[in-house]
Amino acid sequence: NKLWGGRFEEGVHESVERFTESVSFEAEELWAHDIRGSIAHANMLAAQGLITEGDRDLIIEGLGKIKTKIETGEFVWRKDREDVHMNIEAALTDMIGEPAKKLHTARSRNDQVVTDIRLWCRDAIDRILIRIKQLQTQLVLLALRNDGLIVPGYTHLQRAQPVLLQHLLLSYVEQLERDAGRLINCKERLNFSPLGACALAGTGLPIDRLMTSQELAFTAPLRNSIDAVSDRDFVLELLSANSITAVHLSRLGEEWVLWASEEFGFIIPSDSVSTGSSIMPQKKNPDPMELVRGKSARVIGDLISLLVLCKGLPSAYNRDLQEDKEPLFDSVKAIIGMLEVTSVFAANITFNGERIRSSLPAGYLDATTLADYLVKKGMPFRTSHEVVGRAVALCIAKKCQLSDLPLDDLRGINSIFEKDVYDFLGVENAVDKFTSYGSTGSSEVQKQLQFWCSKLEITGAE
Amino acid sequence: NKLWGGRFEEGVHESVERFTESVSFEAEELWAHDIRGSIAHANMLAAQGLITEGDRDLIIEGLGKIKTKIETGEFVWRKDREDVHMNIEAALTDMIGEPAKKLHTARSRNDQVVTDIRLWCRDAIDRILIRIKQLQTQLVLLALRNDGLIVPGYTHLQRAQPVLLQHLLLSYVEQLERDAGRLINCKERLNFSPLGACALAGTGLPIDRLMTSQELAFTAPLRNSIDAVSDRDFVLELLSANSITAVHLSRLGEEWVLWASEEFGFIIPSDSVSTGSSIMPQKKNPDPMELVRGKSARVIGDLISLLVLCKGLPSAYNRDLQEDKEPLFDSVKAIIGMLEVTSVFAANITFNGERIRSSLPAGYLDATTLADYLVKKGMPFRTSHEVVGRAVALCIAKKCQLSDLPLDDLRGINSIFEKDVYDFLGVENAVDKFTSYGSTGSSEVQKQLQFWCSKLEITGAE
Amino acid sequence: NKLWGGRFEEGVHESVERFTESVSFEAEELWAHDIRGSIAHANMLAAQGLITEGDRDLIIEGLGKIKTKIETGEFVWRKDREDVHMNIEAALTDMIGEPAKKLHTARSRNDQVVTDIRLWCRDAIDRILIRIKQLQTQLVLLALRNDGLIVPGYTHLQRAQPVLLQHLLLSYVEQLERDAGRLINCKERLNFSPLGACALAGTGLPIDRLMTSQELAFTAPLRNSIDAVSDRDFVLELLSANSITAVHLSRLGEEWVLWASEEFGFIIPSDSVSTGSSIMPQKKNPDPMELVRGKSARVIGDLISLLVLCKGLPSAYNRDLQEDKEPLFDSVKAIIGMLEVTSVFAANITFNGERIRSSLPAGYLDATTLADYLVKKGMPFRTSHEVVGRAVALCIAKKCQLSDLPLDDLRGINSIFEKDVYDFLGVENAVDKFTSYGSTGSSEVQKQLQFWCSKLEITGAE
Amino acid sequence: NKLWGGRFEEGVHESVERFTESVSFEAEELWAHDIRGSIAHANMLAAQGLITEGDRDLIIEGLGKIKTKIETGEFVWRKDREDVHMNIEAALTDMIGEPAKKLHTARSRNDQVVTDIRLWCRDAIDRILIRIKQLQTQLVLLALRNDGLIVPGYTHLQRAQPVLLQHLLLSYVEQLERDAGRLINCKERLNFSPLGACALAGTGLPIDRLMTSQELAFTAPLRNSIDAVSDRDFVLELLSANSITAVHLSRLGEEWVLWASEEFGFIIPSDSVSTGSSIMPQKKNPDPMELVRGKSARVIGDLISLLVLCKGLPSAYNRDLQEDKEPLFDSVKAIIGMLEVTSVFAANITFNGERIRSSLPAGYLDATTLADYLVKKGMPFRTSHEVVGRAVALCIAKKCQLSDLPLDDLRGINSIFEKDVYDFLGVENAVDKFTSYGSTGSSEVQKQLQFWCSKLEITGAE
Repeated sequence: NKLWGGRFEEGVHESVERFTESVSFEAEELWAHDIRGSIAHANMLAAQGLITEGDRDLIIEGLGKIKTKIETGEFVWRKDREDVHMNIEAALTDMIGEPAKKLHTARSRNDQVVTDIRLWCRDAIDRILIRIKQLQTQLVLLALRNDGLIVPGYTHLQRAQPVLLQHLLLSYVEQLERDAGRLINCKERLNFSPLGACALAGTGLPIDRLMTSQELAFTAPLRNSIDAVSDRDFVLELLSANSITAVHLSRLGEEWVLWASEEFGFIIPSDSVSTGSSIMPQKKNPDPMELVRGKSARVIGDLISLLVLCKGLPSAYNRDLQEDKEPLFDSVKAIIGMLEVTSVFAANITFNGERIRSSLPAGYLDATTLADYLVKKGMPFRTSHEVVGRAVALCIAKKCQLSDLPLDDLRGINSIFEKDVYDFLGVENAVDKFTSYGSTGSSEVQKQLQFWCSKLEITGAE
Repeated sequence: NKLWGGRFEEGVHESVERFTESVSFEAEELWAHDIRGSIAHANMLAAQGLITEGDRDLIIEGLGKIKTKIETGEFVWRKDREDVHMNIEAALTDMIGEPAKKLHTARSRNDQVVTDIRLWCRDAIDRILIRIKQLQTQLVLLALRNDGLIVPGYTHLQRAQPVLLQHLLLSYVEQLERDAGRLINCKERLNFSPLGACALAGTGLPIDRLMTSQELAFTAPLRNSIDAVSDRDFVLELLSANSITAVHLSRLGEEWVLWASEEFGFIIPSDSVSTGSSIMPQKKNPDPMELVRGKSARVIGDLISLLVLCKGLPSAYNRDLQEDKEPLFDSVKAIIGMLEVTSVFAANITFNGERIRSSLPAGYLDATTLADYLVKKGMPFRTSHEVVGRAVALCIAKKCQLSDLPLDDLRGINSIFEKDVYDFLGVENAVDKFTSYGSTGSSEVQKQLQFWCSKLEITGAE
Repeated sequence: NKLWGGRFEEGVHESVERFTESVSFEAEELWAHDIRGSIAHANMLAAQGLITEGDRDLIIEGLGKIKTKIETGEFVWRKDREDVHMNIEAALTDMIGEPAKKLHTARSRNDQVVTDIRLWCRDAIDRILIRIKQLQTQLVLLALRNDGLIVPGYTHLQRAQPVLLQHLLLSYVEQLERDAGRLINCKERLNFSPLGACALAGTGLPIDRLMTSQELAFTAPLRNSIDAVSDRDFVLELLSANSITAVHLSRLGEEWVLWASEEFGFIIPSDSVSTGSSIMPQKKNPDPMELVRGKSARVIGDLISLLVLCKGLPSAYNRDLQEDKEPLFDSVKAIIGMLEVTSVFAANITFNGERIRSSLPAGYLDATTLADYLVKKGMPFRTSHEVVGRAVALCIAKKCQLSDLPLDDLRGINSIFEKDVYDFLGVENAVDKFTSYGSTGSSEVQKQLQFWCSKLEITGAE
Repeated sequence: NKLWGGRFEEGVHESVERFTESVSFEAEELWAHDIRGSIAHANMLAAQGLITEGDRDLIIEGLGKIKTKIETGEFVWRKDREDVHMNIEAALTDMIGEPAKKLHTARSRNDQVVTDIRLWCRDAIDRILIRIKQLQTQLVLLALRNDGLIVPGYTHLQRAQPVLLQHLLLSYVEQLERDAGRLINCKERLNFSPLGACALAGTGLPIDRLMTSQELAFTAPLRNSIDAVSDRDFVLELLSANSITAVHLSRLGEEWVLWASEEFGFIIPSDSVSTGSSIMPQKKNPDPMELVRGKSARVIGDLISLLVLCKGLPSAYNRDLQEDKEPLFDSVKAIIGMLEVTSVFAANITFNGERIRSSLPAGYLDATTLADYLVKKGMPFRTSHEVVGRAVALCIAKKCQLSDLPLDDLRGINSIFEKDVYDFLGVENAVDKFTSYGSTGSSEVQKQLQFWCSKLEITGAE
């Protein structure tokens, strides 16, 4: 009963059929693209006289009915029909008979499946791009809602310098913008039509690859039929792009999980994005961001699966490539979920301004500003670094902040200090002093915020 | 309606609920272990007087009914009840009321889930071990069916030395034996009970961890409650073991795909383990072994997912760990499928002895035996290597085999050659000459074959 | 003696110093970029009045002398000075004293190191792009040298259809072209200047980031200082691109290793790209292509290292990021070596046309062409597939080729066959029949070959 | 000049020589094992009469001199001699002439290299095991120094329950013990001798594999010569074990980096294990533990490299396998460094007991103990969970701790509360209440501590 069974005398072993079937995981994802591709192919076959217009109409009508059946859940996917392509073609044959047998003219499953996957990836990229923009928008809105809030900037998870929360949030917006850029490049590179490459060598039948390419909104047909059916580099590229996005989101996840801890206490997630404990009644956990961090692992695992899969395969199509689909579907599903839930989380957290402000004196966040003060007075930077280092050591001994040191103490370290030094101490002063392009200074951050509001078409507060 | 909702005022956001639920992928795998663990827990609670015997009986009876419902497909898994544990507990509460609320006494989902997973892994290892033995058996049977057949041994995919096919097949049996060894070690190391570790700190209620450990056939309770709930090293170890097995199978897959090619032509898969092409009527493809090779990629990807997941997580339980299950389930399912289908393939291939024999003269497989001949005559090995190298060069020029060179030609290269040299030339002679322990010589291979027949309890031909 | 030792009272533990130093692996790679960046920084500091022109001249002259010392091997890298930056700055201080202490004004190692790495990556991409073009050129030259040679096209490593060798070689050229495209996109995306982001917040000193950006030939300064120092997505993108290229090369490696085997015998590598065996005198191994295949593994491993490294890191710079360099350097070195040696291999192999031609009748490569013949006669494709399948089965039974079947036999299967069928049988006929765009038909391949000759500026034979 | 050059007419291309040589990265690691293996081999050859005793003495004396030269740095490694084996053999030939040419009798580089690597791995495991024990000892000593200190136990990085610091530290000791267990299993499994497997088929010369196996302290010779030269599963197993250890250490790294932050402030690393900032004078960073976390990435990357390398390789030795060494060496070096520096860090941190104690009231760590109180009073656990949840909500509203709630408030929630409830509130009470096996209760932890002191032979304080 296989559509390829002509030379076979024996049925396929049941365990082999089970092991090799792909319909169970691909049908739901690929059926729409498969039908779309078949319609384009049928139109071309008719235009080229390879099938009659009557056959074409029957085929297209039949495919339309199958589409409806699938959408309404009436269609029965059969594992003994192996894959999504054979299921649809066999159902069409059951429905319209002879003309259906002409649909596969000048086509192989090799070019058919890769056409489906390219169409699917193109759609997937569009779906991801929308979520990236949504998350960027939520991050900017969050920034707008927290105007003027200073938070500690960290390096090595040690307090480093004071930064505006807005500045920090926009750093994630920048990263997401590059993530989008990678996807756009990937989409441009993959949007070429393999249809008509057939098994691997093309065909001698008078097909028109340009026509199907155009109907399916591809940029052009791929130039080399062997390349068309054998390479999956576009999937690798998409999964790489997803992995980088996942790493970005895992870092945001890590930050927000940290910030929601008792010790940091910087953010308060609403109940709607928290979960509790089955044993500890007091717990309120930032689960969604933990899972965002966690799901980055599967996105990376999916990429590795595909790299390992393709490594060392001999030329043209190998059945191994059937394994490209699950990692692809899984990666895209995960990244979309991660982006969505991060957006929801961003919309449902409150920054605990009071707690943050009261914690700011700790950590000598103004030490570098003090060093800059000394540089402005003409001291070489390395010397100023050492001088401030000594001032910090004094503060540790006296358990006080830099701004608490009396001028005499400072002048005891170095006589260069003058009364104006106090204009440089304290986190508000420190933030005020930043002026360089892209820095955390208020006016710089304001400009960046406006840039992003405009780019993301945000017209102000929510 | 959450079982942990006491301090919560607001419901969980729908997208968060969808993103964080795990019931959809874990229920099918874990329900039986979850119920088994709950019964052991209830027995212990009753024995310790923490619940009444009446409550215990109600609980156990209720869990039995739930088990039946699940087996018959009547049980409705609810995503809003998050996970397998909450689904079962909530259903129990719906069924028996108040007593069900006592089941979670001195237990947290943290120790509950890791108990389930350890039980699951223990079963999974047993399931894999059976398949490993089955495949070893099929390989030995295949060897028994091909007594005396000499094939080229390859290094660098270049013909190297003649080997008995039996010897080659047994090399895979050896590898599978080590694969089994790793799994057995893993099972011994993981078979400790976390139950009673509760959230992470243990409990003040008078539980008996030894009792639940024994009822669940664990070796002993884990010594440290924090370790018990926070570590997943046993999953990493199982997935590592699977990855190594997968690499072994991928190599066997590569070999048999090669050998089924027109160019090699060494094996003929039966129709029952082959598939055809939708476009090329003559094709008969060894798909199962291609997919075995391909599926090794997902097994490796699953391992990576879990390594990435666990890397850098802060202490004790984090929600990220929910993501440990899908790679685990997937890896075990894949490796079982790979082992099974390789067994079926092994049972359904024929070695094309005629083709193999006719190809054996090519490749100078007897060159090393010739070098050994010279060593036996007292020539230093490096000199003999060079002498034989020159003999091979002469054969290439004359387009003949070593055994075709007349003695004069050989003596022209070095006068050490005598007439007895021809006892060392030709693949049959070459194989006959191997005598070292573990070598491809007939009597050595026969001993190994007997060793494996005895170990695998194979009583001869099929 | 550390440049950051102001607040420290105790020296660093020797094992910590050894564990944390980076100079031993980064100095050789980064010193030139570090000096280039420092010169640009010094010029800017002087232009902005932050240092005097005299200081600037001393600094630049000093850096020039250090450059010479490094180039001549006189420079002593000291591990107790931690990294490449501190080594150069400390050496400059040893040389010119006080002015050197001003060089680090408005700069941190955080922005300094990422400036160095971005410059290094930009250069690395250029170096890889040259090798890609070289390999493309060698492949096209190899194609030109083998005009008209037909080889079997494979799917599932089973013979599928006849293809022109030129067509197959060009499929790799296409893949390399996309590899280059990814690198170019990556370069465009990374070519922004982080210099002036300082530790993470920017600075209050009046620097000019546009000036340093221009002097270092960056497109523009990065917009956000936190993003500038904390993200390594550009390294991830470069390593992803390399991984995809590596997968492509591993497949070419697999193919040529196969083709060099006795069983295929399609290519003969020259002695200059082969190696021998220490024990088997007759061996000649295609080692370079095995190692190309093998080295793909490290390129993938390098990518994973970096993905794992970055996953879940909290915001801004963490010392973990020091570990980004070795995978980066290793990946680039490996991919360059792989491209180079593949070029050399391509230039030193001969296709064994005689052997290939004599093998072509096997495998029913013309079966699809025969099916197309039937379609042209008006038979639905699925029917024609089945008819040809029966014809192949007959050939197998009669141990002959399709072209050997007498017309009666064919008509016995289906009466549609006519005498003109023999124009479609045999591989030469089969290849001749391909006409679709991008197919393996001679005129199509010729067009593609001309396209690539023109694009790669190849003026004909070597 | 190659030792295998007999049949070659042309020298190897310079780029191929550079690409394929391995001496530059393997010599330092493998030379001692290679010489040891060669001595064992020479002894056996003499015992079996394959070389004379005089030749054997010359060979062993010569190898001894080479050993001395290598140790004193006089030995010149030549890349044109490819690998460590050829370098040593060629140097021996330069030194003693003809007898050296007999050393390679009945040996191939294939079995020689894998013998070297197995010996190397065996030593490496011993080296790692020593460091694991050292780190366990440091952790136990750290526990002994911090008797009675209660810290918050976390799940989801949210405060969960109070635990003894000793309990937490011992959880890492447990994990390291399993890490050691994996290595010991790996060592047992790999400690079999491949020597005498020769190229892949064994030999016809009368060698004694048992003798070399015993001299090299292997358990026994490997049973199958093809298996012996072609499999690298023992390297995969060692790298898997290292990866799991690395994950454990990365988690400890994450914890200590967190705990060293201003926000946690739980640990104070000494200056000797901290580093500073080039720009921010106040910074003191816990770099060693960041790098421990970071270096886990390369250990994982090394494992992946090797898995990818081996996947899909055809049978027996392939040159790809040369790439097994660098990941192996790198993984072992990294894991040893990570273990060492973590030991040093553990010996150089102080827990800030005052800060920890003052922070303990936050987070309702006693909530679960309160629920247990209610269970003891006879309330079903789920009900008690809800009751305590309401009490916590009340505390949040009143900004107080559970122990601050007056009895009336508690009874307002549920009348079951009595005065004895206050014996269960507060972290000290909460910890006191834990009694289950493996829990954080003082007497339980004391028992575990004694267990480990005894097992690790720690006689008390430092």
